[in-house]
Amino acid sequence: MTAPSRRDLANAIRFLAIDAVQAANSGHPGMPMGMADIAEVLWNDYLRCNPANPHWADRDRFVLSNGHGSMLQYALLHLSGYDLTLADLKHFRQLESRTPGHPENFMTPGVETTTGPLGQGLANAVGFALAEKLLAQRFNRDGHDIVDHRTWVFLGDGCLMEGVSHEAASLAGTWGLHKLVAFWDDNHISIDGNTDGWFTDDTPKRFEAYGWNVIRGVDGHDATEIKTAIETALKSSDKPTLVCCRTTIGFGSPNKAGKESSHGAPLGKDEIALTREALGWTHGAFEIPQDIYAGWRARNRVAAEGEWTARFAAYKAAHPDAAAEFERRLRGELPDSFAADALAYVAQTQIDAATIASRKASQNAISAFAPLLPELVGGSADLAHSNLTLWKGSKSVAGSDPDANYVYYGVREFGMSAIGNGLALHGGFIPYDATFLVFSDYARNAVRMSALMGVRAIHVYTHDSIGLGEDGPTHQPVEHLASLRYIPNNDVWRPCDAVESAMAWKRAIERTDGPSCLIFSRQNLPHQLRDEGQVLDIARGGYVLKDSVGAPDAILIATGSEVGLAMQAAAQLGDKVRVVSMPSSDVFDRQDAAYRESVLPKAARKRVAVEAGVTDFWRKYVGLDGAVVGIDTFGASAPAEALFPHFGITVERLIEVINAL
Amino acid sequence: MTAPSRRDLANAIRFLAIDAVQAANSGHPGMPMGMADIAEVLWNDYLRCNPANPHWADRDRFVLSNGHGSMLQYALLHLSGYDLTLADLKHFRQLESRTPGHPENFMTPGVETTTGPLGQGLANAVGFALAEKLLAQRFNRDGHDIVDHRTWVFLGDGCLMEGVSHEAASLAGTWGLHKLVAFWDDNHISIDGNTDGWFTDDTPKRFEAYGWNVIRGVDGHDATEIKTAIETALKSSDKPTLVCCRTTIGFGSPNKAGKESSHGAPLGKDEIALTREALGWTHGAFEIPQDIYAGWRARNRVAAEGEWTARFAAYKAAHPDAAAEFERRLRGELPDSFAADALAYVAQTQIDAATIASRKASQNAISAFAPLLPELVGGSADLAHSNLTLWKGSKSVAGSDPDANYVYYGVREFGMSAIGNGLALHGGFIPYDATFLVFSDYARNAVRMSALMGVRAIHVYTHDSIGLGEDGPTHQPVEHLASLRYIPNNDVWRPCDAVESAMAWKRAIERTDGPSCLIFSRQNLPHQLRDEGQVLDIARGGYVLKDSVGAPDAILIATGSEVGLAMQAAAQLGDKVRVVSMPSSDVFDRQDAAYRESVLPKAARKRVAVEAGVTDFWRKYVGLDGAVVGIDTFGASAPAEALFPHFGITVERLIEVINAL
Repeated sequence: MTAPSRRDLANAIRFLAIDAVQAANSGHPGMPMGMADIAEVLWNDYLRCNPANPHWADRDRFVLSNGHGSMLQYALLHLSGYDLTLADLKHFRQLESRTPGHPENFMTPGVETTTGPLGQGLANAVGFALAEKLLAQRFNRDGHDIVDHRTWVFLGDGCLMEGVSHEAASLAGTWGLHKLVAFWDDNHISIDGNTDGWFTDDTPKRFEAYGWNVIRGVDGHDATEIKTAIETALKSSDKPTLVCCRTTIGFGSPNKAGKESSHGAPLGKDEIALTREALGWTHGAFEIPQDIYAGWRARNRVAAEGEWTARFAAYKAAHPDAAAEFERRLRGELPDSFAADALAYVAQTQIDAATIASRKASQNAISAFAPLLPELVGGSADLAHSNLTLWKGSKSVAGSDPDANYVYYGVREFGMSAIGNGLALHGGFIPYDATFLVFSDYARNAVRMSALMGVRAIHVYTHDSIGLGEDGPTHQPVEHLASLRYIPNNDVWRPCDAVESAMAWKRAIERTDGPSCLIFSRQNLPHQLRDEGQVLDIARGGYVLKDSVGAPDAILIATGSEVGLAMQAAAQLGDKVRVVSMPSSDVFDRQDAAYRESVLPKAARKRVAVEAGVTDFWRKYVGLDGAVVGIDTFGASAPAEALFPHFGITVERLIEVINAL
Repeated sequence: MTAPSRRDLANAIRFLAIDAVQAANSGHPGMPMGMADIAEVLWNDYLRCNPANPHWADRDRFVLSNGHGSMLQYALLHLSGYDLTLADLKHFRQLESRTPGHPENFMTPGVETTTGPLGQGLANAVGFALAEKLLAQRFNRDGHDIVDHRTWVFLGDGCLMEGVSHEAASLAGTWGLHKLVAFWDDNHISIDGNTDGWFTDDTPKRFEAYGWNVIRGVDGHDATEIKTAIETALKSSDKPTLVCCRTTIGFGSPNKAGKESSHGAPLGKDEIALTREALGWTHGAFEIPQDIYAGWRARNRVAAEGEWTARFAAYKAAHPDAAAEFERRLRGELPDSFAADALAYVAQTQIDAATIASRKASQNAISAFAPLLPELVGGSADLAHSNLTLWKGSKSVAGSDPDANYVYYGVREFGMSAIGNGLALHGGFIPYDATFLVFSDYARNAVRMSALMGVRAIHVYTHDSIGLGEDGPTHQPVEHLASLRYIPNNDVWRPCDAVESAMAWKRAIERTDGPSCLIFSRQNLPHQLRDEGQVLDIARGGYVLKDSVGAPDAILIATGSEVGLAMQAAAQLGDKVRVVSMPSSDVFDRQDAAYRESVLPKAARKRVAVEAGVTDFWRKYVGLDGAVVGIDTFGASAPAEALFPHFGITVERLIEVINAL
C-alpha cells in the first residue's frame, strides 16, 4: 500500500465537508472543496499548533475569514487530532453541537475567532498579528524569542468586497505585519454567481497599494505551487503577504464545480456519488481510512510546543520577572493589586469632587489605571484629542518600542473594533478603542462580535448626545445608547460624573466575559455627593443617589449628563423624591431581585426617566404609568446650551412632567 | 481697477470660512482653506448649476464628502448666487440657521446630500452618477440628450480611510461611471496629525486597481493644473476619475498651514489677522467686495438651464410620453393608478390566502408592483436568491439596457445603502436594497442617513430571527428589530403573512419623507383571516387581528412569525383574548389617540407581547404589569424547528405566561 497522496489527504477534507453538509441538509460545501489543497499544505507542512493544547501561547493562529466554509476548519481540526470527533462532525449545524454553522471561538477547540460576518476575520487576523508583534517587542530577549508565531488567514471574494477588508489591510500594511499571511480563495464565484458583474478589482494591485507582499497566480490545487508561495511568504521581513490562489469552487464535482450552485447548498446524493467517482474517493460517508489519518498525523505537532516549552524554561531562568509577567498576561489575569488600587482611585475621585467632562474623567481614569496594566492597548479612530484616549505613557504601536500600547487607527471604526477583537482573542491584551458615539454605527457588527465571542474589549464612545453641539445631527447620537444596550452580553455604561466614570472603567477592565461600552460626555458634568456605600453601589449599575424622606412619592431615573438635571429637579420638588442614577442598566438588571426592589420598589409607580436619547427604552423601568423625558427625533446644529432647552431636556420640563403624573 | 485674480476669488471662500468658524467659535477652517482653489476653478469654469433653481433636473451634482468643511460649500453657494445670504453665513452652526455644522440636504438650497459621516458622500456620489447613467439610458433619444450631467465629489484622507470608500469606488469602477469626478484633498493631515503613521496607502494605485482613471500629482493651489486635470477628466469615456490634488490644509495661515491645528478649531483672532496679511486680504470679517462678487457671478449660470429647457421642449415635442414620464419621475410622484392597483393586489393576497415565507411574499409584491414602477431600482448585497429581490423584469445596471433596474452590489452592505441614498436623492428612482437582517449592522449608518435626510429608500432585510436556523448566532438578529425602530423617522415593518407583506411594500413605496425597513422571514408564515376593514387597517401599523368577545381579558401583541403563535395561543385560551398584530410600531405610534386606544385600551393591563427578539422594546406597550416573550441572548446554530422551542418561543410558553399574569 502506498502512502496517500497530498490530493488524497485534501480529499478527506472535501468529503467530510460534502458529507456533513449533506447530513445537515444545510451549509457550504463549495469553499472547503476549493480550498482543501491549500489547507492541506498549510496544516501539514507549516502551521505550528498543538492539537493536544489549543491554548499553547506561541501557537500559530489560523483564521477562517470566509467562515461559511466552517466544515473546512472542522475537518482540519478533526484530521489533525484536535478534540473534535467524527460524531461531532456528524452533528454539524445541530443544536448544541461543537460544529455550528459558522466557527465559534467559544464552542470548538482550535477555533481562534468566530467568523461568518465577512471581512471581519481578516481584521481579527490583523489584530492577532499585531498582538504577536507587540508581545514579541515587549517580552523577547536576546537569544530568547519566546514569542514567534504566525497568523494565517483564509479569505474569499466576499471578504475582499467588504469595506472592513480595506481598513484592516491598510493598517496591516502600514504596520508591516510580516508574520501575517492571507490566502485569497480566488474562485470568481460569490452567492449571486460569477463575480464578473460586481467584483472587477485588480486585487493584487490593490494590496500592493497597501504595502503588502503579493504573490500572484498560484494554482490553489497544486501543492507544489502552494508550498513555493508559502516559502516566499516566510521570507517577507517587513510586509504582510497575500497569496492569490486561483481555485475552483466545489472542486471535484462534475456538475457543480466552478458554479455558485456548490456555494451554499448540499451537493445532493447523486452529485456526491459522481464527485466520489471523479475524485476516486471510494470510502463511505464520514469514513476516513487509517492511512489517511496516518498521513494527517504523520507530523509530530506536539513537538513544536515541547520545543517551545524548553525554550521558555530557559527564558524563565534568565528573566524570571518577565516570564511571570508574560504568563500572567496570557492567563488574562489582572495584577493582584489592581482591584484595591482601582477602588482607592475611585474613592479618591469622590473626594476630589471634580466637575469635568466625563470624557476627561475617562482620560484621568486611563491615566490612573494604564500604568498598572501594561496589557491595556488603547486607540482611537482619528479622534485621540476629542475622545481623550491618550495618556502620558502612550506609545504608538507603529514602531518597535517595547512599551508600545497605543494604536492610531485612522478613520477606520469598523476595522478598529474588529482588530481590537483580535488583540483580545490573541491573549495578553485588553484593548480599548474610541470614536464618537454616533460612529459606533460604523463599527456596530464588530461590537456585536465582541459580545458574541465574550471578549474583554472596551469601546469608548464620547460626545454622547446633543451635548456634542454644533456638529449637528449627523454627529449627535439619539438611538445609540438604547441600541448598544440591546446587544446581548454587552455592558453599556453612561456615567454621570468623574466618580462613576472611574468605576465604569474599573468594571470594564475587570469584566472577563464580554465587552463594555463606556459612554462619555463632551461637556462638563457636575460632581455628585455620595457616601462610601453609594460609591460602591455604582458597580451595581443603578443605585439611589438621593433618597426621599420616607417612601418615595416619585422616583427620578437618570443617566450621564441628565443626572445633574434630575438632582436639581429633585431639590426643587422637596424631600419626597428619590433620584436613581443608572449608569448601566445592563449591570443593574443582573443584580438580585432584592437589590433591584430596594432601588425601584414595585409599589412606587410615579416614575420619570430622563436621558438625552430615545425615550421608549426607559419604559422597562417606568412602565405605562410613568413618563420619560428624552429625544425621539434627530438633533440639530447649535451650541449645546441652546440644544437642551430646544429639545425640552431641562429641570423645568422634568418638574412639569413629574407634577403632571 | 484690475479684475480679481483666481486666487482672490478663492480667498473669498477662505475668509468666509475663517470668519464664520471664528464667529461660531467652532468648525473646520483648514479644509475650505485647502480646497478653495480647486473649488473656485470647478465652480467658476465647469460646474453646471442654476443658483436660481437648485432643483433643475439636469444640473451637475456637487458632493462634499468631507462634510466637516461645510463652510466651503456655504461660501460657494453664497458667492455663486444661491439663496444663502451673508446673514446665513454669520449664523453658521447656530440653532435653526441654514448653515448647520455639516451640510444638510433638507436645510440649504444647493446641498444635494447630507455629509459628515466620512466616506458616505463618495458613496452617495456613486449613486448620483449611477442615477444619471440609468436615466440617460432610459430617456435619451437620438439627438436628444436631455440627461447629461456630471457628479463632482470632494473627499479627504478620512473618506479614503473608511471602508465604505472601498465598496463605493469598486462599484463605480465596475460600472464605468465616467461622469463621476472625485477630487482628493491630499493634505497629509487628519485630526490626529500627520497621516504618515496611519495612512500609507498608495491611493492612486489603489484607485487604478478599481478601474478608475487617476490623475496624479496635481498642485491643488495652481488653477492651471487644476483646469488641466479637469479637462483630462472630461475626456474619460469609460472610467470615473480621481484627481489627486496635493494641498496644504489651512493654506495661507502663517502658523497653522499644514498642521492639524487648522483642522477642527477656529484659527483665533491673531492668526486670522496674520492670515489676512499673508494672503493680502484687506477686507473685514464677512466683507466681500463687489468686484469679487462680480468675479463669482461673471458666468451666466442661469443660461445652462435655459439652454436645457429649450432642448427639453424639443424632446417633449418629439417624445411627449417619454417627457411626461421623465417629469413624473423627477417629481417623485407615483403613477396615478398605483394606489388603487396596489390596494387591489393587497386585497387579492387576502383572497389567495397563501402560507409562504414573507420573503417570498415580498418577492411576489415586488413582482406585482415593479412593472408599474420603472423607477424602482432593486438590489442585494450578494444574496439575491436568499433575499428574493429579483423579479422577472430585473435587468442589471452594469450594462446599457434602457430598462436596467437591478444592482448586483456584491458583498457591500454599507456601500449599497449609501449608494441607494444617492439614487433616491438624485431623483427619478425609488431604490430598494437587501441583505440578511443581521447585516443591517454593516449598513447601519447609511440607514440612519436615509432617515435623517428623509429619503424614500427601502431596505429589505430577510432572515429576520432565529428562524434563519443553521447559520447560527452570527447570522441571527436579536437586537436588530428594536435597534432599527429606534432610528428616528425610520419605519420598520415586520409583516406576519403575505397580506401584511404586500401592504408594507405598498406603504414603503408611497412614503415620501423617509425610509422603510421591510423585515421578512426565511420560513413559511401561516395566512391570517381578515375582513376588508382589517386589511385596510394593516396600513395603520397595528390592528386587532382577532378580537375578544366583550372587553378583552388579555391582549396578545405580536409581529411577524410570532403572530401565528399568538393566534394559536388565543384559540386555546378562549374568547376573552384579543390578538393585536403590530407589523409597524412606528406607524402605529403615529395614529391618533382614539385609534390607538381602540386597539390597546388603557384599562386592559393584562398584556403579553411576543417577538423573536429583545424583550425590553415591548415594555412600551405591556408596561410593568405585562410580560414579553422573546430572546435576550444570542441565538444558536440548529434547524429553526429546534430553535423556537429551545428559546421558549412556543404556543405553550405563551399560554403559560398569560396564565401567570
